[in-house]
Amino acid sequence: MIQPHGGKLVNRTVTKDQLPENVKVLTLNEREKNDLEMIGCGAMSPLQGFMNSADYNSVIEKMRLENGIVWTLPVVFALKADDPTVTVGDTVLLKFEDKIRGSLKVEDIFSVNLDHEAKETLLTNDENHPGVQYLKSLSGTYIGGLITALDLRDSEPFRDHRLIPEETRVLFQEKGWNSIVAFQTRNPIHRAHEYLQKVSLEMVDGLLIHPLVGATKADDIPADVRMLCYETILEKYYPADRTALSVFPAAMRYAGPREAVFHALLRKNYGCTHFIVGRDHAGVGDYYGTFDAQEIFDNFTPEEIDIIPLKFEHAFFCNKCGGMATARTCPHTGADRVFLSGKKVRAMLIDGILPPPEFTRPEIAQLLMEAAQK
Amino acid sequence: MIQPHGGKLVNRTVTKDQLPENVKVLTLNEREKNDLEMIGCGAMSPLQGFMNSADYNSVIEKMRLENGIVWTLPVVFALKADDPTVTVGDTVLLKFEDKIRGSLKVEDIFSVNLDHEAKETLLTNDENHPGVQYLKSLSGTYIGGLITALDLRDSEPFRDHRLIPEETRVLFQEKGWNSIVAFQTRNPIHRAHEYLQKVSLEMVDGLLIHPLVGATKADDIPADVRMLCYETILEKYYPADRTALSVFPAAMRYAGPREAVFHALLRKNYGCTHFIVGRDHAGVGDYYGTFDAQEIFDNFTPEEIDIIPLKFEHAFFCNKCGGMATARTCPHTGADRVFLSGKKVRAMLIDGILPPPEFTRPEIAQLLMEAAQK
Repeated sequence: MIQPHGGKLVNRTVTKDQLPENVKVLTLNEREKNDLEMIGCGAMSPLQGFMNSADYNSVIEKMRLENGIVWTLPVVFALKADDPTVTVGDTVLLKFEDKIRGSLKVEDIFSVNLDHEAKETLLTNDENHPGVQYLKSLSGTYIGGLITALDLRDSEPFRDHRLIPEETRVLFQEKGWNSIVAFQTRNPIHRAHEYLQKVSLEMVDGLLIHPLVGATKADDIPADVRMLCYETILEKYYPADRTALSVFPAAMRYAGPREAVFHALLRKNYGCTHFIVGRDHAGVGDYYGTFDAQEIFDNFTPEEIDIIPLKFEHAFFCNKCGGMATARTCPHTGADRVFLSGKKVRAMLIDGILPPPEFTRPEIAQLLMEAAQK
Repeated sequence: MIQPHGGKLVNRTVTKDQLPENVKVLTLNEREKNDLEMIGCGAMSPLQGFMNSADYNSVIEKMRLENGIVWTLPVVFALKADDPTVTVGDTVLLKFEDKIRGSLKVEDIFSVNLDHEAKETLLTNDENHPGVQYLKSLSGTYIGGLITALDLRDSEPFRDHRLIPEETRVLFQEKGWNSIVAFQTRNPIHRAHEYLQKVSLEMVDGLLIHPLVGATKADDIPADVRMLCYETILEKYYPADRTALSVFPAAMRYAGPREAVFHALLRKNYGCTHFIVGRDHAGVGDYYGTFDAQEIFDNFTPEEIDIIPLKFEHAFFCNKCGGMATARTCPHTGADRVFLSGKKVRAMLIDGILPPPEFTRPEIAQLLMEAAQK
């Protein structure tokens, strides 16, 4: 079994009675709530809490934690306008929407230049970028420190598919998989995605469909619709003994290249050995070059990353090939290739037109049409 | 560029005027002629000649040369009934069908147990096995020693596609390919083979179609028909900038697992980094287990083999998947899968029936039908 990032799987989970009493309560936003859950269950190993200024600055400038371990995105907790005053040394509770979710031992309170953070991590400070919009909503003061987290999965959606790293590792062992490829997605699985997954699955033992279900931007397809699509396509088109579906409760940063590495490292914590990186992974708009999210891996040694990035071209159905292909394997021209933009597909679904089976499996097209027309 | 097996590319090529004069002449059979060409051009690096008894015995018993380097099949020269008497220290010429092809410095003359060789290398001594039949035709006396070989490619078929390892290495460099997958075949490329090649090509820079054109058994499809098929399918269905076609002038041993390793190591000499190993690679009849040729690689460290074996399942077109797949990626049943035995396809072609496009590209089916009806 592959080692977790940094060598040891973190577990910062506590039960309610282990939380401190009579302490101040600070407010999590949705991304921070997602991050707290991810840190608590070890998905963000070796992180044990929200970053202090040393790690934060090191990650921003060097894509590494202060101790040298590769880490590409800040994982931080921002002081909110209505929060009570805290000082270093305090232990506080953390709530999201009036529900206590864990605690934080305040080790560092530091102000940052959010514009600099945006430029370095998102490679833009354009306000149209959803990650920049998020940063603009923050106070500019972060609080770092060790956290604890309640396991609140019983009250979260998709409980049956909400495996933590310890559990996916047991699952893989029980299935006898030595090599496991993870597929990150925040979209329904169309045939292009299925093709990349199946190409990978020809070479490894198992496939983990690992959809992100944390905070996403408003126009992304809701997680509950997507989960129904995933369950349906797995049942109809994938071998049950080689596939697993579990959710990845992280928030999207839309940080492109840096988020591709982040996504890969976190999947290593879940026990995956391979990670699919397509074109413009974790991108949005035109902020990143098509292959930037693949090339960023060249900044690190394979040993530092350990999980193997599988770098793919964009896939399509080619009428002349009579099957799925990419520019790497198909010699034909655009006219032979079935291509539909996301915008076009959305318009078709709203108009009650099913996208063709070369683009989307009919069962998935049907589900998406029903959701679009609601 | 990947290192040749043993670290150095052998070159034992000489010109006619460098051959000794007034010496005895021994007779090569077809396999030995193929082997002489392969040793001479470095395809069998680190071999510099036909094996002496120490290497022969070590290969039979340990699948290694006496110096420990992995090598799985004997490469030997047999004394023929009509050959003149030779003694250790002699230098002799080697001819095939009255044409001088190189020289041999006699270093070792040794008699062997051919039945033992068959059992250890072919895993059978059944006379129906073509490799056993070949061994039964030999004298039981081998002559080992350093060889030289003439470059006679200008009088061999497929001259334009007869690249030696030095040349494929230059080709790969010029094409800018860092990773190259080799596909060994002694059959036309049907869609099942195309699928495995293209799955591989999604992950590496280039594909070398490397058909064996040395001695094969009588009922295999002749090399000239196959070459026409390869050229046609490459032109119609493969991207020109990612594929190359060159011949592999070795003889088939039909040795299954041991020949799979042998085939892989030789492709490393040609500069390939990956090698496709399907089900029953280099097998014949029912002599080998389906995955034996994949599992044999586990006897060696990845560093010893260096070239990476890509181990695949049998591929097929699945009507429910609407594309090519294997048991690793398709959940459907046999009834949904287009399967034709080699025997069935031969019968169809002779009867003038084209196999379906799910099995073979129409252009290839047409070429095979024309050849079958000649």
